[in-house]
Amino acid sequence: MSKQRYFEAFLVYAGLNMVLAAAAGALCAYIAPAAAGSGIPEVKAYLNGIDAHSILAPTTLFVKIVGSILGVSAGLVVGKEGPMVHTGACIASILGQGGSRKYGLTSSWLRYFKNDRDRRDMITCGAAAGVAAAFRSPVGGILFALEEAASWWRSALLWRTFFTTAVVAIVLKAGIQFCSTGKCGLFGEGGLILYDVSSAQVTYSGGDIVAVIVLGTVAGILGSIYNCLVDKVVRTYSIINEKGPAFKIYLVVAISLLTSCCYYFLPWIANCIPCPTDPTVTCPSVDESGEYKIFQCPPGYYNDLASLFLNTNDDAIRNLFSPKINKEFHISSLFIFFAAVYFLGIITYGIAVPSGLFIPVILAGAAYGRVLGRLFEPITKLDRGLFSLLGAASFLGGTMRMTVSLCVILLELTNDLLLLPLVMLVLLISKSVADCFNKGVYDQILKIKGLPYLEAYAEPYMRNIATRDVVSGPLMTFSGIEKVGNILHVLNTTRHNGFPVIDEPPFSETPELCGLVLRSYLLVLLKAKNFTRERTFANPSILEKVSSLDFGKAGSGKGVKLEDLDIQDEDLDMYVDLHPIANTSPHTVVETMSLAKAAIIFRQHGLRHMCVVPKSQGRPPIVGILTRHDFMPEHVLGLYPDIKHHKWH
Amino acid sequence: MSKQRYFEAFLVYAGLNMVLAAAAGALCAYIAPAAAGSGIPEVKAYLNGIDAHSILAPTTLFVKIVGSILGVSAGLVVGKEGPMVHTGACIASILGQGGSRKYGLTSSWLRYFKNDRDRRDMITCGAAAGVAAAFRSPVGGILFALEEAASWWRSALLWRTFFTTAVVAIVLKAGIQFCSTGKCGLFGEGGLILYDVSSAQVTYSGGDIVAVIVLGTVAGILGSIYNCLVDKVVRTYSIINEKGPAFKIYLVVAISLLTSCCYYFLPWIANCIPCPTDPTVTCPSVDESGEYKIFQCPPGYYNDLASLFLNTNDDAIRNLFSPKINKEFHISSLFIFFAAVYFLGIITYGIAVPSGLFIPVILAGAAYGRVLGRLFEPITKLDRGLFSLLGAASFLGGTMRMTVSLCVILLELTNDLLLLPLVMLVLLISKSVADCFNKGVYDQILKIKGLPYLEAYAEPYMRNIATRDVVSGPLMTFSGIEKVGNILHVLNTTRHNGFPVIDEPPFSETPELCGLVLRSYLLVLLKAKNFTRERTFANPSILEKVSSLDFGKAGSGKGVKLEDLDIQDEDLDMYVDLHPIANTSPHTVVETMSLAKAAIIFRQHGLRHMCVVPKSQGRPPIVGILTRHDFMPEHVLGLYPDIKHHKWH
Repeated sequence: MSKQRYFEAFLVYAGLNMVLAAAAGALCAYIAPAAAGSGIPEVKAYLNGIDAHSILAPTTLFVKIVGSILGVSAGLVVGKEGPMVHTGACIASILGQGGSRKYGLTSSWLRYFKNDRDRRDMITCGAAAGVAAAFRSPVGGILFALEEAASWWRSALLWRTFFTTAVVAIVLKAGIQFCSTGKCGLFGEGGLILYDVSSAQVTYSGGDIVAVIVLGTVAGILGSIYNCLVDKVVRTYSIINEKGPAFKIYLVVAISLLTSCCYYFLPWIANCIPCPTDPTVTCPSVDESGEYKIFQCPPGYYNDLASLFLNTNDDAIRNLFSPKINKEFHISSLFIFFAAVYFLGIITYGIAVPSGLFIPVILAGAAYGRVLGRLFEPITKLDRGLFSLLGAASFLGGTMRMTVSLCVILLELTNDLLLLPLVMLVLLISKSVADCFNKGVYDQILKIKGLPYLEAYAEPYMRNIATRDVVSGPLMTFSGIEKVGNILHVLNTTRHNGFPVIDEPPFSETPELCGLVLRSYLLVLLKAKNFTRERTFANPSILEKVSSLDFGKAGSGKGVKLEDLDIQDEDLDMYVDLHPIANTSPHTVVETMSLAKAAIIFRQHGLRHMCVVPKSQGRPPIVGILTRHDFMPEHVLGLYPDIKHHKWH
Repeated sequence: MSKQRYFEAFLVYAGLNMVLAAAAGALCAYIAPAAAGSGIPEVKAYLNGIDAHSILAPTTLFVKIVGSILGVSAGLVVGKEGPMVHTGACIASILGQGGSRKYGLTSSWLRYFKNDRDRRDMITCGAAAGVAAAFRSPVGGILFALEEAASWWRSALLWRTFFTTAVVAIVLKAGIQFCSTGKCGLFGEGGLILYDVSSAQVTYSGGDIVAVIVLGTVAGILGSIYNCLVDKVVRTYSIINEKGPAFKIYLVVAISLLTSCCYYFLPWIANCIPCPTDPTVTCPSVDESGEYKIFQCPPGYYNDLASLFLNTNDDAIRNLFSPKINKEFHISSLFIFFAAVYFLGIITYGIAVPSGLFIPVILAGAAYGRVLGRLFEPITKLDRGLFSLLGAASFLGGTMRMTVSLCVILLELTNDLLLLPLVMLVLLISKSVADCFNKGVYDQILKIKGLPYLEAYAEPYMRNIATRDVVSGPLMTFSGIEKVGNILHVLNTTRHNGFPVIDEPPFSETPELCGLVLRSYLLVLLKAKNFTRERTFANPSILEKVSSLDFGKAGSGKGVKLEDLDIQDEDLDMYVDLHPIANTSPHTVVETMSLAKAAIIFRQHGLRHMCVVPKSQGRPPIVGILTRHDFMPEHVLGLYPDIKHHKWH
C-alpha cells in the first residue's frame, strides 16, 4: 500500500482472506456441517427438547472454535458471539455427558448429569457463559439464556446460571488483569467495558424524543426486512449447499471475494480528511489495529471509510460509538458503510462458516444510528455516538426481538446506566414494529432447518381439536411380562421411542395401563438377558445384574444399539418382566382434552411422550401416544387441511 | 438543640416520632391490617395462586401509601421499598379487576383482565414497577419480579414487565428532569443513580479476594441469624397483635420510643471530629438533610454517629458508601450504628406499620461492610466505600437470598459496572452460606402467616405417596343435568369451589367424567334461573340470558353470593343443565401417580383443582379432587405422621 502498488495489495488482501475463508468452509463442509451458522438456533432447539445428533458433538466444538477464528480473520462480515454461545453449550454438553469416552476424557462425578433435565441445565449455563464471555456481560448472559435460549426455566436455573457467569466474570477479570500489559494481543484491551460511551447530556428535549422514536420505528422496519432477506438467502443457499461439500466451499470463496472487493474498493470513494490536532492520538495509522487508517491518503490525512472497513470489528464499533468531538465521518461514508454491511451481513449468513449475527447487526445499526443522528441534528442535541448506540440497540431489537437481555448486554458493553431509559424506549419501539411483520431471525432459521420446535403457545385452531384426533400410526403396546421375540420384532419394525405397557388378566382384574417403557431401557434390559421361561414377575435378585447407571442417558450417538444385542433363537420364546423399567407415572391426558391444553402440558414439562387415555370405560386402556411431532402445525394441518392456518401471534 | 436544651429537644423529637408512628399504627390496626409489614410476601403469595381477600384491596392500598409515609417519617427503621412493591401490585390489581365499582372507577376495556392469568400478569408488572420506582432500577425491577415475586413465568411476561418498567424509567426520568431545580423536595436529588460509588481501583490482589470472601461468609451467617430472629420476633408479636387493635398501637408506640432513644442517646457516645478542610462541603449542617451533623459538638466539628442516625436513610447510606477521602467515621461509631440498626430492624418488623426490609438490611450491611473494611486495612487496598457496598450486597444476599435481581439493583443504584465481579462473588458466598441454615426472610414470613404457598419442588417423601392417598373429604359430584335443590344443598353444606360433573346413562353409555364446574359459575347460572322442568339439555337460546362477561373473575370479595340468590320452592325440583358451564378439559391425573409429580403439574399450570381418576375400570369415573391444601406438607404429614419430615433443600 505504502508503495502505491494498490492492485498487488488487493491481490494479497483478497487472496489471504480467501484462503482463510476457504479453510473455514472446508472444515465446516467436511468435518462438522453442524458448526456452520450462528449456533444459537441449534442451542435453542436442543434446549427445547430436540435431541438432534451432532449439534453438540466434540467435532462440532472443534470446528466451531477453529472455523470461527478463521472466519473472523478472513474479514467476513460475521461475528464471534453466536459461535461462542454454541461453544459454551458444546463444552457444557461434553461435561454433561460425563466427558467423552471416545477421547478418553471422563470423570466419575460427571455421571450425575446423565439425565435430560440436568444436561439441559448444564447447556443453558454453557450458553449463558458464552454470552458472558463474548460481551464481557455476566448479567446479560443470564438474561440471554433466560429470554432467548431456554424453553423451560426454573428458579434453580437462575441461581446456576448466576454462578456460572459469576465464575466467567471473575476469570475474565483475572485474565484482563493478567493481560493488562498488552502481552495477549487484543484481549486485554478495553477491560470489562468494551466500548465506553458516556452521555454528557442527561436531560432530553421533546425533539430528542421524536428523533429517538423515528430511529426506533425505522430500525424496526429495517430489521424485519433484514430477517426477511436472511430467510430468502438461507433458503437459496441451502439448495446450493445440498449439492455437496465442494459447492459449499465455492460459495464461501465467492462471498469472501465479494467482501474483499467491497472492503477494498469502497474506501476509494471517500475523501481524505485532515487528522485531528489532538496530540494524544496517532493519526494516521498504517499497520496498528486502531483508528484513523491512512489508506490512499497523504500523510496527515485519513480515510474515514477505510477506518471503518479495514479495522477489526471491535474498533469499527468503537469508532462509530465515539462522541462527536473525537472523530468525524462523512455522512456519505457512513451511509456506504451501512449499506455495505447490511447487505454483506445478509448474504454472508448461511454459508458454511461459523457466523454470528450480533456483530454484523451491531455494525449496521451503529452506522445507521450515526447517519440518523446527522440527519436529526437540526432538532436534537443528543450526541452522535449516543445515536450510534441507540441505532445498534434498535437494530438488534428489530432483528433478534430480545428486550431485557439486549438492554443489559448493551449497558454492560457501554457502562452508562443513564442511557437506560432511551435504550429501553428504542428497544420497545423497534421490537414492536418489527413484530408486526415477521418473527425473530433465530426463529426463522429454526423453521428453515425444519427442527420441530415447540412454541410456548399452542396455535389457536388447536383449541378445537381433541387429542384423540391427532394420535397417529398403529399403537404398539407390550404386556407387563412380554415375550422377548415380540419385543425384538417391535423394536426392529418401528422407530418409536416409547411403548405403553399394559397389565392384563391374570395380572390385573381388567386391562390397565401400567406405564411407559423407553426403547433405550428395553435395549439395556435385553442386553442384560434377564429372561424367564415362565410368564412370571422377575426375581428381584436377577435385576442386580443391571446397574441403575446403565439406564442413565448416554451421550449423543452412544448407548446400546439394536445390533449390539446378542439374542439367541432359544431366547425368543422366553419372557421378560417390564415392570421394573416402566415409568408407572407417565403423563396422561384424556382423549377429549383439547390439543392446545395438551400442547401446553407437553411443553411445560419437557415431555417426550404423552399417553392418551380413553374417556369412557370398556375400551382398551390407552388410545395412543402423543410425541413432539404430533403437535407440529404441519402435522395437524396435514390431517385437517381445511383448518385455516392462523398467523402466529 | 442549638440552645443546649437537650432534654426538651429529645421530648419533641420522640414525641413527634411517636405521634407519627401511632398514626401509622392506627391506620393499619383499624382500617387495613393487611397493609402492615413489607407486603412482598403477600404479593408473592397472591402470585402463587392464593386468592386471600384484602391483600390487594383499595383500602390496603390507601393505608399502605399513607402508613408508609408516616412510618418512614417517624424515624422507624423501616424501608419504603417493600411497601412500594405492594403499592404497585395493589394498583395493578385494581386496574386488573376493571377498576373499583365501589368507588366508581371503572372502565370497559379493563374487563379483558377478568381472568386469573391476566390479572396475575398485571400484578407481576405492578410489583416490577414498584421496585423500578423504589430503587430507580428498571432492569432490577424486571428481575425482582422474575426471581422473587412470580411463581409462574412465561416469555410474554418478560416483555410485559419490560414495557412496564420502561414506562417507569421514562416517567422517572421526566420527573427528575422536571424536579432538577429542587422544587420537589428530595425527589430530584441524585438523579437516576441514587448512590454514586466509583471504584478507583480496577485490579485486585489476593488479599482483596480473601477479605471479600470473609466478608461474604460472615454476612451469610449474620443474615441467617437475622432471619431466625425476625422469625421469633414476628411470632411473638403476632400473639400480642391478636389481642386487639389497641395492643397493636401500644406495640408501635413502644418500638417508636425505643428507636427514638437509640437514635438520640447513642450519638452522645461518639466523639466530635473536626470538619474536613474541603471548602465545597457545608460542615457541620444543622437542619439541612445532608451530611456532617453537628449535634452536641462545637462549631467546626461534627458528630459522626449523629451523621448516620439523625439523617434520612438515603443520606445515611450515601455517607456509608462514600469513599475514604471524603468522610470518616470512627470504627466504634460504625459498630454501634451497625448493632443498633441490626437489632432495631429485627424488632421493628412485625409491628402494625407498613415496613420494608430492604433499607434496614442495606443500612446494617453497609455499616458492617465499612467496619470490616477498616479491620481488613492491613491486607487490602480496596476502598472503604466499596467495602460498604459489598457489605450491603452480602447482607441482602444473606437475608433475602436473591441473586441476579439484587446484583442488578445494586448496579443500577451505584452505576459502576466494574464492581460486578466482586458483587457477584459476595452474593454467591453469602447466599450459599445462609442457605445452609434457613430459608429466605420472605419465605419465613409466608410460613408464619400460614399462607398455603406451593413450593416449586415437591418434598422428597411425596414421591412415595400416590395421589389417591391424600384426597380427602366426601366427594361431591353433580350429574350433567342436575336438580336445582341438590345444587343449592351442596353449595350450602360444603365450602368446595369446584365440583366434578358426571354424565350418567341415559346421557352416556357408562358413567363418565364430563368436566368440572366452579362454585362461582354455578352461582351465576342459578341467578339467571335457566331451569327446565324435564331432565333435558338446555335450549341454547335460554343461555343467551347470561352474558359470558358475568363469568369473568370478579374483584376480591365481589361476585354473586349464595345469599343473593332468589330461588323459590317450586324451582327446587326443576333441573338445570351444567354442560354449558363445565370445563370439559380439566387437568386429570391417575390415582397411582406420585404426589410429587402431581404437585409439579399442579403448580406449573397454576391450577386450583385437579381431578384424580381411577386406574382400573368399572369404578366411578372420579376418585377425588386435589386442591392446593392437599399438597401442603402439613396436610400430608397429618395423614401420614410416621413419614419423617425431611428438611427443605
